[in-house]
Amino acid sequence: MDSLLQKIYKDISPLIGQGKVADYIPALGAVDSNQFGIAICSNDGEIYTLGDAHKPFSIQSISKVFNLILALELKGEELWTRIGREPSGLPFNSIVQLEYEHGIPKNPFINAGALVVSDVNQSHFASPRIAVREFVKKLSGNPNIQIDKVVADSEFEHKARNASMAYLMQSYGNFNNDVESVLYSYFCNCAITMSCVDLAKAINFLANRGYSNIKKKQVLTKNQTRQVNSLLATSGMYDEAGSFAYKVGLPGKSGVGGGIIAIVPGQFSICVWSPALNDAGNSLAGGAALESMTKHIGWSIY
Amino acid sequence: MDSLLQKIYKDISPLIGQGKVADYIPALGAVDSNQFGIAICSNDGEIYTLGDAHKPFSIQSISKVFNLILALELKGEELWTRIGREPSGLPFNSIVQLEYEHGIPKNPFINAGALVVSDVNQSHFASPRIAVREFVKKLSGNPNIQIDKVVADSEFEHKARNASMAYLMQSYGNFNNDVESVLYSYFCNCAITMSCVDLAKAINFLANRGYSNIKKKQVLTKNQTRQVNSLLATSGMYDEAGSFAYKVGLPGKSGVGGGIIAIVPGQFSICVWSPALNDAGNSLAGGAALESMTKHIGWSIY
Amino acid sequence: MDSLLQKIYKDISPLIGQGKVADYIPALGAVDSNQFGIAICSNDGEIYTLGDAHKPFSIQSISKVFNLILALELKGEELWTRIGREPSGLPFNSIVQLEYEHGIPKNPFINAGALVVSDVNQSHFASPRIAVREFVKKLSGNPNIQIDKVVADSEFEHKARNASMAYLMQSYGNFNNDVESVLYSYFCNCAITMSCVDLAKAINFLANRGYSNIKKKQVLTKNQTRQVNSLLATSGMYDEAGSFAYKVGLPGKSGVGGGIIAIVPGQFSICVWSPALNDAGNSLAGGAALESMTKHIGWSIY
Amino acid sequence: MDSLLQKIYKDISPLIGQGKVADYIPALGAVDSNQFGIAICSNDGEIYTLGDAHKPFSIQSISKVFNLILALELKGEELWTRIGREPSGLPFNSIVQLEYEHGIPKNPFINAGALVVSDVNQSHFASPRIAVREFVKKLSGNPNIQIDKVVADSEFEHKARNASMAYLMQSYGNFNNDVESVLYSYFCNCAITMSCVDLAKAINFLANRGYSNIKKKQVLTKNQTRQVNSLLATSGMYDEAGSFAYKVGLPGKSGVGGGIIAIVPGQFSICVWSPALNDAGNSLAGGAALESMTKHIGWSIY
Repeated sequence: MDSLLQKIYKDISPLIGQGKVADYIPALGAVDSNQFGIAICSNDGEIYTLGDAHKPFSIQSISKVFNLILALELKGEELWTRIGREPSGLPFNSIVQLEYEHGIPKNPFINAGALVVSDVNQSHFASPRIAVREFVKKLSGNPNIQIDKVVADSEFEHKARNASMAYLMQSYGNFNNDVESVLYSYFCNCAITMSCVDLAKAINFLANRGYSNIKKKQVLTKNQTRQVNSLLATSGMYDEAGSFAYKVGLPGKSGVGGGIIAIVPGQFSICVWSPALNDAGNSLAGGAALESMTKHIGWSIY
Repeated sequence: MDSLLQKIYKDISPLIGQGKVADYIPALGAVDSNQFGIAICSNDGEIYTLGDAHKPFSIQSISKVFNLILALELKGEELWTRIGREPSGLPFNSIVQLEYEHGIPKNPFINAGALVVSDVNQSHFASPRIAVREFVKKLSGNPNIQIDKVVADSEFEHKARNASMAYLMQSYGNFNNDVESVLYSYFCNCAITMSCVDLAKAINFLANRGYSNIKKKQVLTKNQTRQVNSLLATSGMYDEAGSFAYKVGLPGKSGVGGGIIAIVPGQFSICVWSPALNDAGNSLAGGAALESMTKHIGWSIY
Repeated sequence: MDSLLQKIYKDISPLIGQGKVADYIPALGAVDSNQFGIAICSNDGEIYTLGDAHKPFSIQSISKVFNLILALELKGEELWTRIGREPSGLPFNSIVQLEYEHGIPKNPFINAGALVVSDVNQSHFASPRIAVREFVKKLSGNPNIQIDKVVADSEFEHKARNASMAYLMQSYGNFNNDVESVLYSYFCNCAITMSCVDLAKAINFLANRGYSNIKKKQVLTKNQTRQVNSLLATSGMYDEAGSFAYKVGLPGKSGVGGGIIAIVPGQFSICVWSPALNDAGNSLAGGAALESMTKHIGWSIY
Repeated sequence: MDSLLQKIYKDISPLIGQGKVADYIPALGAVDSNQFGIAICSNDGEIYTLGDAHKPFSIQSISKVFNLILALELKGEELWTRIGREPSGLPFNSIVQLEYEHGIPKNPFINAGALVVSDVNQSHFASPRIAVREFVKKLSGNPNIQIDKVVADSEFEHKARNASMAYLMQSYGNFNNDVESVLYSYFCNCAITMSCVDLAKAINFLANRGYSNIKKKQVLTKNQTRQVNSLLATSGMYDEAGSFAYKVGLPGKSGVGGGIIAIVPGQFSICVWSPALNDAGNSLAGGAALESMTKHIGWSIY
C-alpha cells in the first residue's frame, strides 16, 4: 500500500495547486492550495497515509453521506418518497429541475436533496445542529472533531440560493421544519472539519459490508451498504458522476473543501484532499489521484 | 445456476404479463405479453436458460451498446468530443437538454446520443445499415441474425421525434451525414431480432474483461471494457438508471422490445426478456428478475 | 354610458359565479362568488356604476400597478436595470425563467418582478408597508382605504413560493433588503381592499395622459403614462396577455381577488369585479365584461 | 409628413450602418449595411418616402404577417387550436417551449408558429410556394414582386433548426404535410423581395380597419384587423416585443433582412429598412426611426 501511495503521488504531484480554491465564502478562500493528503483504511483496520493526511479540512458536501445514513437509519425505504435516487444531469444547485419535479429533488447528494435529508433529521434529533458531528466522532474514533463556526456562520450569511431551494420545496409540501433552522443545521454539517485519516476511517464500513471496525458495530445492513454505494456511484460527484465512473470507477463523494472519499468494496476506503478545484467543483489533484490509483491496482467496480 | 434460474422464476412469475407492451408501432404492439425468457452465459462459455430464452425478439435500444462499441473501436477517446458520458436525468427522448447543451447529447444511450454514434458509424462503414447486424452475428456466433424490415420501416414512418433531435444536433454542427439516411440505419439496428441466448453470448466479453470466447478475440481492452460497463451502470436504463443501480446493482441496458442485458463482471453475462414494460419503458418482469438474481447471489458491483 | 353598462351586464350575467374563487388562503376562499360590479371613471370625472361597484374587495395583483408607479417616480428609467419589460410567456410564479435569466425578472407584473419593485420601494420609504395604501388613498380620493391584516398575515404564512423567488434573486445580487420584511410589505399591498369605484378613480390618470383629476396633479408624464400602459398591454394579464389583447384590446391588470382594471386611453378608466376565476387566474365574468364592452363601443387600442 | 420624415432622418442618421447585417446565409451577408429607407402610406392613399424606399430587400419574417392573413382567411378562429396567441418570452427559434407546450407554438410570429401557418396553407393552395407572393402582389399593387431563389435555396440548405422544430411538432401531431415541402414554401415566402413602398402599401389595410385602397377590397373584417394588430403588438418583435411597445408603442413586425413594418391605426402604415441589426435581430436604425417617429407625432396606441 505504501508503494501504491508513492506511485500515485509521483503521477499527480505536478497537478497539486492547479485549479481554483472555492472562494464563495472568505473562510474557504483563505486555504493554501498547495496541500495534498491521502489516507487509506483497509477493511482489516490498517491505515496508510501520505502528505497532509492528518490535517483537518472542511468536509463540506461529504457531510451529505453521513447526513443520509442517519436519515436512512431513521426512515428506511420510506425516505425515498421525499427524494429520488436518480442522477440529476444538472449542476448541484439547479432550481429548474426542482420546479419540473414538483419539489422532489433528484437524489440526496445534490443540495436540494441534502436539504430534505436535513429536514428529516431536524424532525428527529434533539440537537440537530450537532447530530452529524456526534455521528462522525463515533465512526472515525476521533472525539475531537469540531464544527468550524466561522465557516458555518459565513455559509449562513450566503444562504440565499439554498434558502430559495428550501422554500420552493416547502411550497410543494416537501419541507416540514422552519427553513432557517434547517439551513443552519445543514451549514453546521458542511462546516465539520476532519482529516483524510478521520474520513477514511469513518466511511470504512461502506467498504466493509456495513460493519464498522472502529465503532465495532453494524452501521448499515449489507444490502443498505450496497444501496448507498450505488447512490454514490451514480450521483456522488455532481454533474461529473458519469466521467468519474468512467475514469475512476468507484463510488465516491466530493466536497468543495477539496476532499473526495471513495470506496473499494470488500477491500478498503480512501480519502484524498487537495483544496484546488476543477470546473465541476471537484478537487483537481484529488480526482487525478483516484484515477491513478485504480489504474495502478487494475481494478474498479465495473 | 439452473437452480438460481428456478428461484428467480418462482419470485417473478406472478409479474409476467403485467405492464404494457410498447405499441407506438403496430409490429411491436402485436407481441404476446405473456412471454418470459432468461439466459446466462458464464465466462467459461456455459449457457443456462429458462423459458423463452431461444425466441428472437426486437432488441431495440440494446443495439445502442453494439453501436457504441463499433464507434469506440473506430474513434477511441475522440468520440467523447461529440457525446457526453453523464446520466441525463431526463426521459430518453427529451429535446430540452439538447438545446441547453448546444447539441451535445448527455450520453450514448439516450436517443440523441445513439444518433450521433450512428452518424459516426455512417461516415465509416460501406454498408452502415447492416454494420451492427454483422457485428452481432460474430459476437453471438449466430450467422442467422436478421433485421426485421417491417419493424425498421414502421419506425422510420414514425421518425418525427428522432428526426427533430437529429436536425437540432445538425443545427449545432454535431451531425455530419444526411439525417434521413442515418435515421434509417439507426432504425435497422433497433430492428435486429435476437434471442436471450444470442444476447447473453454477444455481450459476454463485457463480463470477461473484453475477451470474447465466441469470437476468440479481444473486442475491447480491459480498460475500455470497464469504461463501457461504467456507462451502462450510470446511463443504461434511461431515467431509471439510479433506481436500477440501487435495486439491481449491475451494469445493464434495456430495450422497449422487453429485453434487458446485464453484466456480472468477472463472472457472467445475462439477458432477460419479457415484453410488458413499466412506466419508465423497461421490462417489468425482466427488471424484477434481475433484482431477484442479485438478491439470491448476494452480490452486486457496489 | 349607463346603457353601455346595461348591455354589458345583459351579455355576461349568465357567467357570474362560473369559475372558481381563489382559495389558497382561507380569507379569499370565503368570498361569495356571485358578486359582480363595474365602474367607469371618465376623463371628465364622471362615474358610472353597476352592481357591486361600491363593495371593497382584495385588490391583490392590481397593487403591482401602484407599486410600479411609486418605484418609477423614485428611479425612472434606472429601474429597468433590475427588471425586464418583456412578457414572460410562463405562469406568474414560474421560477425556471428566473434562473435562466440570472435573477432578472421578465417584467414588473409577474410575482418576481413585483418583489423587486417592492425591494426598491422598501429601500426608500420610511413605512414601506403602508406606502402603497397611502398612495391609493390620494389617487382615489378615498381616505378610508384599508389593508386587510387577516389576508396579509395569511399570505405571509403561505409565503414559501414567493420567498423562494426572492431568495433566488438575492443569490443573483438582485435583492437588497431583508427578504421577510419585503415579503410582508408586498403582502400588505396585495391585501389592500378597494371597490370598483375606488380603483376606476385611482387609475384614471393612466387614461388621462398622466393627469389625475382627483389628486389634481400630474402623476406621470404623458410619455411615462404611455409606457406604463404598454407594459399593462403586453404583460398585465399573466400568461393570458396575448389572448386578452386579442379579445379585449386594452391595457389591463387583473388580481386573484377577481378585479380587473382596464384603460381606454384618452377616454376613461374601468374596473370590473367578480370573484370567480378562470384557469389562468383572471376573473371569468370580469374578462367577459371587458370583451363585451370593447365589442359595444367598437373600439380598442389596436 | 415629408417634414416628419426629415426630422426622423436627422435623429437617426448617425445610427445607419451600426449593428450587424444577418450573415447566417451568404446572400444576406453581402448586403450593404449603409442603406436606409422609409415609406409611409396614408389611409387616403398618399405615399411619402425618404432614402432607399424604392429598393427591394428580403422581407424575411415580415412574410409571416401575410402568411397568417392567408391562413386566417381560410380557417378563421379554428386556426387557434393549432397555435397560441401569447408572447413567447424566449428567442424566436427556441425549441424548449415547444416541448413544454407539447408541440403548440406560442404565437404565429415565432418560427415554429409560422411553420404551422405554412402547413395550414400548404394543405390548401395548389401552388403553396407562390401563394404569399401572389397575395402581396395584389396587396401592394406591384405585379413585379419576386422570390429571390438564391436566398430561398440557401435558407433551405441551412434548414436544420427549422426542420427540427417542424419534426418536433409532427411528433406531437401538429403538422400534416411533408416537412421538407412545407419548409421550402416557408423559405420561398421569406425570400420575397419588396421595397419599403411595396410593404407600406401592402399592409395599409391593417391601419385602415381591414380595407385595402389598393386592392379596393375588405381584406379582413374590422374586428379581425384589430386582432391581427394585437398579435403584432404583443408578439411581433421576437423577444423585444415588450421593449418595442414601451419605446415605440405601435403594432409592428420585423425581419432579419432589416425591414420593420408598423401600423398607426386609423392613420397610416409605415415601413422602414436598414440592414444592420441589433442583438435581438431587429434593424437597429429602423427601430430608432420608429421610436423617433412616435416621439415626433406625440402619439402611440397606448
